[in-house]
Amino acid sequence: MTDAAWSSQVKWSADGLVVAVAQDFQTRKVLMLAWMSPESLRLSIEEGRAVYWSRSRQRLWRKGEESGHVQRLHEVRLDCDGDSVLLLVEQLGGIACHTGRETCFYSRLIDDRFVAVDPVLKSAQDIYGKDGEKPDLGVK
Amino acid sequence: MTDAAWSSQVKWSADGLVVAVAQDFQTRKVLMLAWMSPESLRLSIEEGRAVYWSRSRQRLWRKGEESGHVQRLHEVRLDCDGDSVLLLVEQLGGIACHTGRETCFYSRLIDDRFVAVDPVLKSAQDIYGKDGEKPDLGVK
Repeated sequence: MTDAAWSSQVKWSADGLVVAVAQDFQTRKVLMLAWMSPESLRLSIEEGRAVYWSRSRQRLWRKGEESGHVQRLHEVRLDCDGDSVLLLVEQLGGIACHTGRETCFYSRLIDDRFVAVDPVLKSAQDIYGKDGEKPDLGVK
Repeated sequence: MTDAAWSSQVKWSADGLVVAVAQDFQTRKVLMLAWMSPESLRLSIEEGRAVYWSRSRQRLWRKGEESGHVQRLHEVRLDCDGDSVLLLVEQLGGIACHTGRETCFYSRLIDDRFVAVDPVLKSAQDIYGKDGEKPDLGVK
C-alpha cells in the first residue's frame, strides 16, 4: 500500500486497521473515534484531511464527503505502542457528529445511564438534505 | 456481569470490549487509548478511577497499580453509536505513559515518520523501581 516510514511504525491490527481519535485542535474537544487503513492514513496525510476506513461499508470514508463537515489535519500523533493515532483537526462547520452535534461523545454518564447532554446544532435534514437521511450513520 | 442501564447502552465488540480514550480534564490533552470490559467499566464507575482490560495479559488493569499514576474519573461519555467511551480524568503524577511522558501520544508525524517530540518527565527506574522494569509495557 505504502512504503513510507510512518507506515512501518504503525502496528496495524490483524484486519489491517488502526484506531484513530480526532480532537479539535482549538477547543481540544475529543470529536470522534474511527478506524484507518494504510491507504486512508496515506490519503489523510497527502490530502490534509481526515480519511477514515468505514468498517461497516468496507470502503474509504472522506469525513465530510456528504455533510461538508470536513476535518482539516493539523497534526498526526502515534501512541507509545503504535496501535492508535491521534488527529488534531480543524472541524469545518463545528460539527463532527452525524446527529448534528459538535462531538460524537455527547452522552454523559449520569447516575446509572448515559444521557444526551450536548445540543443539536443543526438538524439531519439541514445537513443531509430534505429527506434527512444520515449517510454517516454506522459508517464506523 | 452487570445489569446497569449503562451496560446495555454500550455496544460491546465481538470479544466483549469497548475502546476507551482517556483525556486530562484540565489540560484537555488526550493521554492514552485502552480497552474496557463490562467489569472494568463497572469497577471504574464504582471506584472512581480508570480500570482497563489488558488484552495482552487478559486481566483487569487498574491504571496506576504499579506506577502510582492513577487516573481519577471525572466524567464518562459514550459516543453516538455506543462503541467507544471517553474518560475525563485527573492524571495523578501528570504522567500517563509507561515511558514517563505526560501522554502516550508523544510521537508526531514530521515529514514521513513519527518522531518522539515530548519530553520524558520521569525515568522508568524512578517510576517502577531500581531495576527499571516497565510492567505496563504492552498491557493494552
